[in-house]
Amino acid sequence: MISVEHRLAIDDLFADYGAYLDGDRLEDWVELFVEDCVYKILPRENVSLDLPVSLILCENKNMLRDRTVSLRQANEYSVHTDKHLISNVRIKGPAAAGGYAVEANYAMYQADNEGNGSLYSFGTYVDEVVFAGDGPKFRAKTVIVDNWSIPHMLSTPI
Amino acid sequence: MISVEHRLAIDDLFADYGAYLDGDRLEDWVELFVEDCVYKILPRENVSLDLPVSLILCENKNMLRDRTVSLRQANEYSVHTDKHLISNVRIKGPAAAGGYAVEANYAMYQADNEGNGSLYSFGTYVDEVVFAGDGPKFRAKTVIVDNWSIPHMLSTPI
Amino acid sequence: MISVEHRLAIDDLFADYGAYLDGDRLEDWVELFVEDCVYKILPRENVSLDLPVSLILCENKNMLRDRTVSLRQANEYSVHTDKHLISNVRIKGPAAAGGYAVEANYAMYQADNEGNGSLYSFGTYVDEVVFAGDGPKFRAKTVIVDNWSIPHMLSTPI
Repeated sequence: MISVEHRLAIDDLFADYGAYLDGDRLEDWVELFVEDCVYKILPRENVSLDLPVSLILCENKNMLRDRTVSLRQANEYSVHTDKHLISNVRIKGPAAAGGYAVEANYAMYQADNEGNGSLYSFGTYVDEVVFAGDGPKFRAKTVIVDNWSIPHMLSTPI
Repeated sequence: MISVEHRLAIDDLFADYGAYLDGDRLEDWVELFVEDCVYKILPRENVSLDLPVSLILCENKNMLRDRTVSLRQANEYSVHTDKHLISNVRIKGPAAAGGYAVEANYAMYQADNEGNGSLYSFGTYVDEVVFAGDGPKFRAKTVIVDNWSIPHMLSTPI
Repeated sequence: MISVEHRLAIDDLFADYGAYLDGDRLEDWVELFVEDCVYKILPRENVSLDLPVSLILCENKNMLRDRTVSLRQANEYSVHTDKHLISNVRIKGPAAAGGYAVEANYAMYQADNEGNGSLYSFGTYVDEVVFAGDGPKFRAKTVIVDNWSIPHMLSTPI
């Protein structure tokens, strides 16, 4: 169904995804998406109730670029560092428009600039991954947040 | 010792295990076990002291089915959603009765219906996995809970 | 760039790393390093500021052995059990002195002897892995701790 090479390349994609966000490499993070992409963050409750409201919605790569520029220039959020643990990567099968439907679970921890850390967010990525010439990229990424009542404002991507 | 295909299939088994529990797909979760299976949850302290008392003990698949029916019908536990992060999958070698002895670590987070989340349980799965016609299944799964003093009652499986 | 076999063997190395520490198998843990190794623990802040101060620094395997003996004999730290979740393993490429540059994220939970558990540390391993006759070993492991303001004293390795 999926070759070992494709599968391990998808694992790599998730590892890069976490590393770029955790390392504040937002511009590299954007490059993990194809041009015609969708990125959104949804509370799990909204998914259960089939409500369409997103916490964040970017409907193409330019919107991701805009968001990155905005984070760089209007840097008003509290300083923190992130750490993503991504596991349970599941290749669910071929996606409707080609590529693979893939899910993975994540836990994301944050530390402030005094080194105090805590669990920030956990949930599931529901994604579509396509293989282009230079490896896999995200065509769609939906972050479904279990603990959507997050005590801090959402600023950087999850 | 173990083929790449078997190894990745075992990774998939753990990913399905987490996804079925997290998605409240208990009936699918039961199907990850063979008929002649054992599922139990033990406090880590009991393992260290070699005490046999389990928090949960199901000695065959029918007991797992009963438990699922009971959870569906006598649904008295507080509403919550689970999220499993399973990693550090270790193929320890051939199991005594065929198949593989496999361990993995887990952290499980819970959120209530207002979106408040926290760490619920962490520990190690000590398992036996066998390959049948349609892929790997659990013959034995022992959940060894490090934080056995869990502040909520144990209801759904870990 | 890296064979499937080498890559899976590196995954195994990290799984053993966690299992030996979590299982208090410190002597086995030492054997995951080559003789001419470096093991250190750094606060993430120090890395950002390019400060060289380590929380722990062992500059060869004998120093790791000494540390293990010291932990066994001068066992004054509070009793606890650890659980490592290691994920996002990234093969970054060939290391300067041969082998592979590898990164991975970790979260480490602790439980006390009454079964109360909590998040203890999270961060990133920045490592060099070499393949000797009997499989991969660590030549260098730098533990970069995001939540370096840890409420307990650092005793056992991370």
